[in-house]
Amino acid sequence: MRLTSISLLAGTALAALPVAAQSETVIGVSIPAATHGWTGGLNFHARETVDRLGAAHDDISFVLTTASDPGAQVNDIEDMIATRNIDALVVLPFESEPLTGPVQAVAEGGTWVTVVDRGLAQDGIEDLYVAGDNEAFGRVAGEFFVDRMPDGGNIVALRGIPTTIDNERVEAFESAIEGSGIEIIGMEHGNWNRDDSFEVMQDFLSRHDSIDAVWASDDDMAMGALEAIAQAGREDEMWVLGGAGMKEMIARLIEGDTEMVPANVTYPPSMISSAIELTVLRYTSPAPMAGSFIIDSVLVTEDNAEEFYFPDSPF
Amino acid sequence: MRLTSISLLAGTALAALPVAAQSETVIGVSIPAATHGWTGGLNFHARETVDRLGAAHDDISFVLTTASDPGAQVNDIEDMIATRNIDALVVLPFESEPLTGPVQAVAEGGTWVTVVDRGLAQDGIEDLYVAGDNEAFGRVAGEFFVDRMPDGGNIVALRGIPTTIDNERVEAFESAIEGSGIEIIGMEHGNWNRDDSFEVMQDFLSRHDSIDAVWASDDDMAMGALEAIAQAGREDEMWVLGGAGMKEMIARLIEGDTEMVPANVTYPPSMISSAIELTVLRYTSPAPMAGSFIIDSVLVTEDNAEEFYFPDSPF
Repeated sequence: MRLTSISLLAGTALAALPVAAQSETVIGVSIPAATHGWTGGLNFHARETVDRLGAAHDDISFVLTTASDPGAQVNDIEDMIATRNIDALVVLPFESEPLTGPVQAVAEGGTWVTVVDRGLAQDGIEDLYVAGDNEAFGRVAGEFFVDRMPDGGNIVALRGIPTTIDNERVEAFESAIEGSGIEIIGMEHGNWNRDDSFEVMQDFLSRHDSIDAVWASDDDMAMGALEAIAQAGREDEMWVLGGAGMKEMIARLIEGDTEMVPANVTYPPSMISSAIELTVLRYTSPAPMAGSFIIDSVLVTEDNAEEFYFPDSPF
Repeated sequence: MRLTSISLLAGTALAALPVAAQSETVIGVSIPAATHGWTGGLNFHARETVDRLGAAHDDISFVLTTASDPGAQVNDIEDMIATRNIDALVVLPFESEPLTGPVQAVAEGGTWVTVVDRGLAQDGIEDLYVAGDNEAFGRVAGEFFVDRMPDGGNIVALRGIPTTIDNERVEAFESAIEGSGIEIIGMEHGNWNRDDSFEVMQDFLSRHDSIDAVWASDDDMAMGALEAIAQAGREDEMWVLGGAGMKEMIARLIEGDTEMVPANVTYPPSMISSAIELTVLRYTSPAPMAGSFIIDSVLVTEDNAEEFYFPDSPF
């Protein structure tokens, strides 16, 4: 066993310490700061999980840092290694490229590495990879449209920032609605942004007289689209499917306010909790935890919304 | 909350019961009986995990069944539903086809389903899928050969029962050694069987004067190959890489007996423990657990063999 918690031991005779203190495992968690809705949820769930598991396990402690840019995140991680002697690192990289070298150095030093959501720029560095399922995110949304529009119809779609994530989602959505009679009469980038999506939706509304539904593909974009629809007074004409499980959207489902927003599709910021739980199991269970855990996107409706509602989370 | 533990409540006033008894979660674990080495390990790890987690969680109990054929496994599962009212099922299907319908019925009844290793014949039934990584199993083995034979050489390979699992492993091995100067001068099916592999290896030995190494690709096949090599008195000529982490093979590494068997590659029967741990987390943590967890195959050498040795396991 390595002696991982030097600060605890200063000035104390080793023999006087309980065994747990000598073999304490330190897990570093490094995530981006809460710059928008989803990272707000990420920060909430990381904190909740670290607090809960720290209290449940005497022999495990955590260092949680939040960074406002990639450089700060690299500093956080180097600091965890230099001063806290962490045994494991759970990291959601701010960006892939600048974090790849520093995280690789951590892994090569013998520290367990769990990477979350945004992969590193090189394969095979991490012990455990935990991420959402973009293909399922698009497919589940598409299947919902097919279920709800058995006779087909006209829809418009908002897509995110041009990325492979967005491409995977849109391709899976398109193949799920193929042959259903649902036609995408307009599709533009709303960039996962409320204001951009408000403008794109205004444009769709001015160009199309008949829109049956909107695949907003993200809750921030859904908020922008809903605002544009309300300003145009066309609420009775169409419904909107967002995604990611924003608190306000889940609350609407719980309240049964499902006319305009009938469902949601998860891409949960609480995946950071899954990553931390599995990393802790690596130290508390003989079960293998190295590998790749891809978290499902699931449909949230009135029936199961309670399960996805976190009243204390900002997201 | 569903009332899951009927037997506990018979003849007892509800108000007198502690809350835990009313909200107890029952998890069914259905696996094949210990018919060969790997399933022996599977049974050991399932029992260890069920005992450990049952003791750690007052509000979770387990039903563990082992079946000798697919029909018996279907009966086990139907019985868990009918008489134990299980909340979740962890199942390693004996065979894919006969289990697909019954497990689908369980899932459609609202029970959480975790499928392990052998997939069902239809996608999308299970909530959580936990399996080994056949591509990595072949790749890690191939990379070890390349590291150990920098100047190339002649090898023979034993492969398993003709299946997609075996194809994935062999293709990954072949692409890992591509361009290394390592030539596969013989490759035959040993069918994951010690006796078959003994015969195949005898044939290789009679046909080839110069063999530098053997990719046995499985520890049972490695045992057969080693026996044939010993009987031919050619132990000094070649080394053997098996796989799956059989106890006797890991013990050799711990003891430093690495001349003929220098390493191992995991395909751990303890993946059943990972599956049970994640299923329990679904009830003890708000972290999302639905998805797909593919467990890495890792290289085991003298340096890390202790971590993969389970003295009380039969495998």
